[in-house]
Amino acid sequence: MKISARNIFRGQIESVKTGAVNSEVDLLLSGGEKLVAMVTNESVQSLGLAAGKEVVALVKASSVLVMTDDSGIRLSARNCLAGTVKTVTAGPVSAEITITLAGGAEVHATITHNAETELGLKEGSAATAVFKASAVILGVPA
Amino acid sequence: MKISARNIFRGQIESVKTGAVNSEVDLLLSGGEKLVAMVTNESVQSLGLAAGKEVVALVKASSVLVMTDDSGIRLSARNCLAGTVKTVTAGPVSAEITITLAGGAEVHATITHNAETELGLKEGSAATAVFKASAVILGVPA
Amino acid sequence: MKISARNIFRGQIESVKTGAVNSEVDLLLSGGEKLVAMVTNESVQSLGLAAGKEVVALVKASSVLVMTDDSGIRLSARNCLAGTVKTVTAGPVSAEITITLAGGAEVHATITHNAETELGLKEGSAATAVFKASAVILGVPA
Repeated sequence: MKISARNIFRGQIESVKTGAVNSEVDLLLSGGEKLVAMVTNESVQSLGLAAGKEVVALVKASSVLVMTDDSGIRLSARNCLAGTVKTVTAGPVSAEITITLAGGAEVHATITHNAETELGLKEGSAATAVFKASAVILGVPA
Repeated sequence: MKISARNIFRGQIESVKTGAVNSEVDLLLSGGEKLVAMVTNESVQSLGLAAGKEVVALVKASSVLVMTDDSGIRLSARNCLAGTVKTVTAGPVSAEITITLAGGAEVHATITHNAETELGLKEGSAATAVFKASAVILGVPA
Repeated sequence: MKISARNIFRGQIESVKTGAVNSEVDLLLSGGEKLVAMVTNESVQSLGLAAGKEVVALVKASSVLVMTDDSGIRLSARNCLAGTVKTVTAGPVSAEITITLAGGAEVHATITHNAETELGLKEGSAATAVFKASAVILGVPA
């Protein structure tokens, strides 16, 4: 699959909670992390999403926030993946941050250059990648 | 209307599926493409969204992914618009891609420069613009 | 809290409308503006979100659109905050815009450089920051 999403995780569906128009899909990634996705019921049906199914989870780098200190604040964002900064690529306005998770997977985030400077992100910094369930796209073999 | 959204499509509502707090709105664009939007019920009521109504659909370029090969993977993203790359503008971190659809409309996506390089995007490349229903904002005349 | 989100607003929950899997949370910000967030029911429960509770609302700059003229169009986006452009930082592809609201709070948006040029954004321009309820992350003290 060739797609611009910087984050492509492999995993298995643990459960699907279906609402009136949207469904919450809980995943277990191959690296051991848990992920939550919010997709439409139509997608659940057309893709046959159900517990046990192998899927890929795609997350655009621009949907990912980088947190270095939660200061005791808990967030509504369902996906918070802790790791270590591997690389920082900074431009005049944007910066791309790559975080390596404990399980070995990498998460890419694009944030503003200002945010990157304020957080003092550099190789080896502890950092958590944060994104909402609604930012996740799921894919299954046709 | 003067707004920073790079993607402004004109279309007509085909159907509205209302849930407990969110509604799915299916559109037929003037170029013949179909589009799906997820908005709150409050917006459906306050904007009077209903089948037959003319609307504009706004999508921020940063919400759009670019796919050049699906490798037999089907995605939960409800909006997949196939076309041809018209222009690529690359910066040190980001790149803006313009895709011309069969119906003549253009879709703009901002992706990372790294993704643009890996996909080998250039003028004339076949490419599909992918975005979630939740990325779409609808507008109606006041 | 150290996080890359450029927009961190303090406010109080006015009401929570719970659906099957998602909930709409209405906030009153300390500057007097209203904000709407869409989060999962799971987050409402785990964070104890309820009317009267003090929260922070986080919005990534890339989720924010900038509008300078609505031309009589009403949008489904639930958050439209009017103010004045304070700064414009432009790169080759992206631009970061800071808007000061009437109540004194600042909103940051990253848009394309092309959009910034077309809108003619500069210090002192009237501008409205627009973002969907689904773009908002809520946080509470642990």
